[in-house]
Amino acid sequence: MSKPIVLTGITTSGTPHLGNYVGAIRPAINASRSSELDSFFFLADYHAIVKTSDSKRIAQSTLEIASAWIALGLDCNTVTFYRQSDIPEITELAWILNTIAAKGLLNRAHAYKSAVQNNLSIDEDGDAGISMGLFSYPVLMAADILMFNASLVPVGKDQIQHIEMARDIAQRFNHLYETLFEIPTAQVDDKSSVLTGLDGRKMSKSYNNIIPLFCSEKQLKKYINKIKTNLLEPGQPKDPDESAVFEIWSAFASDADTESMRVAFKEGIGWGDAKNKLFNLVNHELVESRERYFDLIQKPEVVEDLLIEGSKKARPIAQENIKKIRHAVGLKELTEQ
Amino acid sequence: MSKPIVLTGITTSGTPHLGNYVGAIRPAINASRSSELDSFFFLADYHAIVKTSDSKRIAQSTLEIASAWIALGLDCNTVTFYRQSDIPEITELAWILNTIAAKGLLNRAHAYKSAVQNNLSIDEDGDAGISMGLFSYPVLMAADILMFNASLVPVGKDQIQHIEMARDIAQRFNHLYETLFEIPTAQVDDKSSVLTGLDGRKMSKSYNNIIPLFCSEKQLKKYINKIKTNLLEPGQPKDPDESAVFEIWSAFASDADTESMRVAFKEGIGWGDAKNKLFNLVNHELVESRERYFDLIQKPEVVEDLLIEGSKKARPIAQENIKKIRHAVGLKELTEQ
Repeated sequence: MSKPIVLTGITTSGTPHLGNYVGAIRPAINASRSSELDSFFFLADYHAIVKTSDSKRIAQSTLEIASAWIALGLDCNTVTFYRQSDIPEITELAWILNTIAAKGLLNRAHAYKSAVQNNLSIDEDGDAGISMGLFSYPVLMAADILMFNASLVPVGKDQIQHIEMARDIAQRFNHLYETLFEIPTAQVDDKSSVLTGLDGRKMSKSYNNIIPLFCSEKQLKKYINKIKTNLLEPGQPKDPDESAVFEIWSAFASDADTESMRVAFKEGIGWGDAKNKLFNLVNHELVESRERYFDLIQKPEVVEDLLIEGSKKARPIAQENIKKIRHAVGLKELTEQ
Repeated sequence: MSKPIVLTGITTSGTPHLGNYVGAIRPAINASRSSELDSFFFLADYHAIVKTSDSKRIAQSTLEIASAWIALGLDCNTVTFYRQSDIPEITELAWILNTIAAKGLLNRAHAYKSAVQNNLSIDEDGDAGISMGLFSYPVLMAADILMFNASLVPVGKDQIQHIEMARDIAQRFNHLYETLFEIPTAQVDDKSSVLTGLDGRKMSKSYNNIIPLFCSEKQLKKYINKIKTNLLEPGQPKDPDESAVFEIWSAFASDADTESMRVAFKEGIGWGDAKNKLFNLVNHELVESRERYFDLIQKPEVVEDLLIEGSKKARPIAQENIKKIRHAVGLKELTEQ
């Protein structure tokens, strides 16, 4: 009996920051160590080309993200780690799913609707600047999931609707043709930590307030020193629950150390002192991965080899499944060429 | 220097009738004998699955249509005759084109707009019953054309807009990334004959007034006898230009024989006599192809082999082109597996 599959897509745009690490990467890598589940991770480059036509950036970002996950301990031997575009059967499945996905379903996608709202609010045509890729993206996401019959898909709250669409499309296919698809379930982590950025808002690339996950020690120190604090002097008690320094500390420290820091805040630890301790803690957790990361970035061929190994695990599954799917809808078996 | 490519898609739904033969199949097969052009013909089964979820019908129709074209003289040695779904790279290209096709472009597609109008006219939601396959179909058609860099696409007037969309998408790609796509041109045949059906309306499956292209001699005779005529007796002059019998006669006869029949009409040929002559003429043109057709239908493996041969010609071109296209948009070269 094969184990249930948990599938995580990673968008290959941008460079990961501490918020990504705490909120998504670390929990996903920890979860991938479970022996109850079969973990699939993929670099979503077919999605990335919807967002940018900068081809060099796609390649660079794929290398950076893959290197980061591997450096942080994703074990390519136990998980299936692949690049989406190494499995072109996914796009074929996306077309087949197009034939059963109702257009009305896609009209209701939050991401699409909010793009339309943005257009209308500036007196533009609702669909201005919206590509078919953006509009159809939930269908490709359904194909990502159904291609491997994933049971669980860990997502943020904003993605729950997409999993519902994948469920809807899968049920429709199973009903119309043949029960080929597992109905996936969204796994929403309520505790999923969102880190505060340098300026006190949520850490996000778009706010330009991030602490990069991998930079030199010196830079990390500099970033941490830039975290916004209040004007309380050393000796004056500080509220830990109002402080980004304490929040990031808790995201990295053991429970005992979190408690000690809480006491230190109440006892008036100075900001400089607290930031120094924070730097040491974060640096300690990242120092080895950082070295591996910068090493991998210099050796794209090593990352490439791991991704090819991953696709050698994933693609035969996709090929086997697409064969059944083609048969179900009435397309002839593909001759190997 | 390679010859310009002319590409014709054949929908694999339904069974061909005399009107299809005169209006589309015969001229296309004749044109394919030109040594100036490289002819590509494909059975559009990825499109057919948008229209029906009856998987057996897809397979049966593909066999019938392929057999008909081959029986009628399509020379698989000189043309490239393949089944669309044997070239899955087309769906990958369709996704890539999705990322640059404006949704607004697709909103304006006539076929989609008319489906919406039909819904609205019966107080339904505009998108009721419309699948993403129907909505996205011009993108798949663009992929069909651009995959092989076809220069010429023979189409009916209702399809001109789709060629314009393919041009628009190709130009956008060439501009954004790299000049990889030939800009296709619609080849609209103004003279393209439309035959009248049994009841006097245009011959069409949806009017249930067709004469099947391939049926037994006896049935063909019966169908021809059913063509609607007026009540004029033998000896009374008849107007050839008002008669479906004369129209079909002209579609099959030489110029000289057309002229003789025109005279015979004026001289009062009897309907029975005229239909008899018509049957002989049509039967004469089809008798050999009919035999080949019924022979092929009994030997699906022969047709299958020819289609596989066709895909062996077409697929390497698609694989070579998708390699360049992937590279242009920033996706890694696919490892053979």
